[in-house]
Amino acid sequence: MLEQIKTIQDLKKLSLKQLPQLCSEIRQKLISDVSRSGGHLASNLGVVELTVALHYVFDEKDKIVWDVGHQSYVHKILTSRGENFSSLRQKDGISGFPDTEEDESDSFNTGHAGTAISAALGLAKARDALKQDYNVIAVVGDGSMTCGMTYEALNNIKDSKLLIVLNDNNMSIGQNVGSATLNMSKLRVGKYDRNKERLKKFLLKVPLVGKPTYKLLRWCKRRAKLGFVRNSYFDNFDLKYIGIIDGNEIKDLVYYFTKIKNNVTKPTLMQIVTKKGKGYAPAEQDPESYHSVNRAGASTDEPESASVVGDTLVRLIDEGENIAAVCAAMAKATGLAAVQRKHPDCFFDVGIAEEHAVTFAAGLAKGGVHPFVAIYSSFLQRSYDQILHDVALQNLSVTFLIDRAGFVGEDGKTHQGLFDLSYLSQIPNMTVWTPATCRQLSDMIERSKENQGPVAIRYSKNLLHDARGFDGRWNKLNSVAEPKAYILAVGARLAESARAAAKEFDNVAAVEATTVKPLDTDLLDEIAARNAAVVTLEENVLSGGFGQRVLCYFAEKSAVKIQSMGVDDVFVKHATAEEQMSDCGMDIDGIVNAVRKILSNC
Amino acid sequence: MLEQIKTIQDLKKLSLKQLPQLCSEIRQKLISDVSRSGGHLASNLGVVELTVALHYVFDEKDKIVWDVGHQSYVHKILTSRGENFSSLRQKDGISGFPDTEEDESDSFNTGHAGTAISAALGLAKARDALKQDYNVIAVVGDGSMTCGMTYEALNNIKDSKLLIVLNDNNMSIGQNVGSATLNMSKLRVGKYDRNKERLKKFLLKVPLVGKPTYKLLRWCKRRAKLGFVRNSYFDNFDLKYIGIIDGNEIKDLVYYFTKIKNNVTKPTLMQIVTKKGKGYAPAEQDPESYHSVNRAGASTDEPESASVVGDTLVRLIDEGENIAAVCAAMAKATGLAAVQRKHPDCFFDVGIAEEHAVTFAAGLAKGGVHPFVAIYSSFLQRSYDQILHDVALQNLSVTFLIDRAGFVGEDGKTHQGLFDLSYLSQIPNMTVWTPATCRQLSDMIERSKENQGPVAIRYSKNLLHDARGFDGRWNKLNSVAEPKAYILAVGARLAESARAAAKEFDNVAAVEATTVKPLDTDLLDEIAARNAAVVTLEENVLSGGFGQRVLCYFAEKSAVKIQSMGVDDVFVKHATAEEQMSDCGMDIDGIVNAVRKILSNC
Repeated sequence: MLEQIKTIQDLKKLSLKQLPQLCSEIRQKLISDVSRSGGHLASNLGVVELTVALHYVFDEKDKIVWDVGHQSYVHKILTSRGENFSSLRQKDGISGFPDTEEDESDSFNTGHAGTAISAALGLAKARDALKQDYNVIAVVGDGSMTCGMTYEALNNIKDSKLLIVLNDNNMSIGQNVGSATLNMSKLRVGKYDRNKERLKKFLLKVPLVGKPTYKLLRWCKRRAKLGFVRNSYFDNFDLKYIGIIDGNEIKDLVYYFTKIKNNVTKPTLMQIVTKKGKGYAPAEQDPESYHSVNRAGASTDEPESASVVGDTLVRLIDEGENIAAVCAAMAKATGLAAVQRKHPDCFFDVGIAEEHAVTFAAGLAKGGVHPFVAIYSSFLQRSYDQILHDVALQNLSVTFLIDRAGFVGEDGKTHQGLFDLSYLSQIPNMTVWTPATCRQLSDMIERSKENQGPVAIRYSKNLLHDARGFDGRWNKLNSVAEPKAYILAVGARLAESARAAAKEFDNVAAVEATTVKPLDTDLLDEIAARNAAVVTLEENVLSGGFGQRVLCYFAEKSAVKIQSMGVDDVFVKHATAEEQMSDCGMDIDGIVNAVRKILSNC
Repeated sequence: MLEQIKTIQDLKKLSLKQLPQLCSEIRQKLISDVSRSGGHLASNLGVVELTVALHYVFDEKDKIVWDVGHQSYVHKILTSRGENFSSLRQKDGISGFPDTEEDESDSFNTGHAGTAISAALGLAKARDALKQDYNVIAVVGDGSMTCGMTYEALNNIKDSKLLIVLNDNNMSIGQNVGSATLNMSKLRVGKYDRNKERLKKFLLKVPLVGKPTYKLLRWCKRRAKLGFVRNSYFDNFDLKYIGIIDGNEIKDLVYYFTKIKNNVTKPTLMQIVTKKGKGYAPAEQDPESYHSVNRAGASTDEPESASVVGDTLVRLIDEGENIAAVCAAMAKATGLAAVQRKHPDCFFDVGIAEEHAVTFAAGLAKGGVHPFVAIYSSFLQRSYDQILHDVALQNLSVTFLIDRAGFVGEDGKTHQGLFDLSYLSQIPNMTVWTPATCRQLSDMIERSKENQGPVAIRYSKNLLHDARGFDGRWNKLNSVAEPKAYILAVGARLAESARAAAKEFDNVAAVEATTVKPLDTDLLDEIAARNAAVVTLEENVLSGGFGQRVLCYFAEKSAVKIQSMGVDDVFVKHATAEEQMSDCGMDIDGIVNAVRKILSNC
């Protein structure tokens, strides 16, 4: 049946009774394709019925915003990307996240958690301003209910015509945390499902009156859910609440969506419960492991960096150090699960709440405990202000463990860790280290404890097993008597490439740059003294990154032709703006002097 | 009396009956000192009794975290900074915000809204881990209840021993927005005060039984507030709730704090109502205008930039453009109040919720309405991820109006707009413009509408009145036949300084750099062709800023000695990391070629 669904119009031609069969075929396709290509399996298995029901009931002009977006595979299969679906996450293939450039049925790009309600609210307000007519639907997991952004959006939702489907599977990526998320759905999938099934079985066994009674009860229950059930949490936001609905029951979903479709006159939240991994026993039993599966043939070993982080932190706590491990909903992937198991008192999972995680860590540091905050590079972007304003400004000793830095491969553009060297290096008081080997990572974790002020350690998922450790200096990877050029490389993969490339020459040195801020100026001075050429390599944007830092260092050393004036890596205290400008040498006298100096050097 | 309070110990020697007199003296000092020095007047007048009561009841070892921190003047006066208080906000004087470097009774630096509960939670967890014994108190305004960070912290507060004082004055900086903030305090100061006063007056007039009855009633009410009153919003976070308490009634505050002090065994929230501007009639009547007052003698005119923003946007809407104005709780200061007045349908104030503001704007843009998001430079740091992930990645046409960029003067280090050129320029698809004159700002607002993709316009509070407009190119500010050096300046103040400095020479050109990304490469090529020297000026950190961008441009043009490899200002799509690396020229072959090329140029 699935093969005949080329467009949404084909789907709409099916009868309600055919939908369970279609769902089952989609599920089979997901299991077989995603097992080969790798990707987010458990979450997509959970939303098969939801996605089919949404497209079956709503119109093509309606806009669905998928929060996080990793659960959009079924949507992609149904919207003309089914045939090409086996190219998922591969170069020039289908993206693993909604992508407006890929197909216009993807109405908004997502990737990071908690953005959907804000975006949907914007779409709804634009629709109203332009007097257009379409529905806006945000599909949001319960994990995103721990995001501050989601709260900010809910707090602004009053009087807006839009539908939120809260897909409640009692998981973010690991287990959910937080009082509010717990309280917003007192009924959970387990208990709910069991009672419902028990009643249904009992009634259907009763002769004659059993079946009509069941149908009557179902009718009553459906009307009640549409009209009378309330939820104290969502009442605070003046949301119309509908729930709780079984989100793996296609007929129920079609029923409720049909009732709602033409009646979204105020913000409405429909809470459904789905089972992550539904229909695939291994994923149902261990949804965290099947959250994201590797492509067939890829190594299934735990990434080195996560093990090093877990082992090192556990050892430090064993040795009596006052440290804490803080993560944002990703204990397993960051390696902190080891701390959680062995030293639960030293472990804090704050949910998908990166902003809070960082300021919470600042509080720990101020209180005398050294926190290690483990957040992926891409997600740490959310905490830019907190790193700057709450940690660096007070020069607090917080260590950031930044995994998945650099190219992340298949997850693509929303998840790249390609900005951290720039946004971290520009913050005064910040130290930025970039290990290439497992031992360097471990050394850096230990050494960061002694550092006055924040340290960011950024690395990719897999590291080298070479014995090289970290002593604060860069490492020469080959031995060249009189180098005419130096390749300066950041991180494990590029250090390897630099060494390999240098082998093609007999006068080129390969260097592993284990620090980005500060730079190893002794080595840079050696290069300048030799008047050698330099190639820098980094998995980061060029603007404000490693290479430009090296370039600017050389510019300052060599016969100066350019003098950049501005704020040179300090936080600036109160005074008048004129006084602040003058302290940085940018009053008129200061500028005149700079020009005199540079002219005399020309 | 105030003059005798040199330390907190002196305060504790006073009797309860002496406290109202002390509060009154503090209020007088605030009004006279802050009127001279400038600063946040209304909020500090509101918290006089609260601050006195906290220090009277709690111990010096206890830690108070002041959210936002602009209401910490009374705290500073009481903690050994009273004598020096007239130096407030001046160079080398007392900071207008808590500063741990200034005095250790400032337990955590604040400045941006919504950080206090996260920080307090960190302090409380550190205290417990180190088995120390002190209270942690976060004082939070109701405005910060619109921050996502505050929600994230509340969601994590379960089982932590700390006290939150919610200082409810029904204001953030302007009027509060949001359903939740409304619902979390159904009783508001007006009604509450009126009824209480009426009852008190009535009972005290009744002979014989009146006074005892009043006292009995007060006792009952106090017990009830301590034990039985509940609040449906805070129940969601399993907070013990106490309230609502009159926060300008010193005796009540001392009573409740004394009861609470040794009993903070679980997270407790005490909601008080205070009157912003209390005791100073002009500030009570118009607290928004007295939120921050200018220093004596300073111009009280509306800043030019805000007027230009308001006037230009109103005109564009009048002309029928589909645009929207979005701000985060600062309609008046950003100039958007003009839009709110004349075109309320096109105006959105989302509360202190910068993250949501930006993604909401992304939704508007995707839906076909061009949004203008007006947020101060320092506060926009909160939205770094949303600008990158939700706006720039989809190349959506959103205009950012970034006021208070550069040195902000008296507000000091937490509020400096000194990072935006760096964190914005490093984002692919982003355009960064820097007006120096009012007309340029107006031209840029208009021109940004036609831009494919996001535009950031950043400027200081006051702009020049020169007639120079904006045509996408930089402006030469003087006429020099054969310049030997160029001063390239960003922004109004530095353009003026550049022109003045150039006057000291007869061969130096002063240039107003109205764009930072892209650079005016024609002009830079002209400079390179002349082999002239360059001084760059910017109110921004050097790292990744304007000057380094110019420097890197020249490095690429001149005889290349350094080749920086990395991601050159694009977003990188899915593929394997190796493929992504190779697309950026960083596979081994690519590196070998780069080295060959640079060697052949040496």
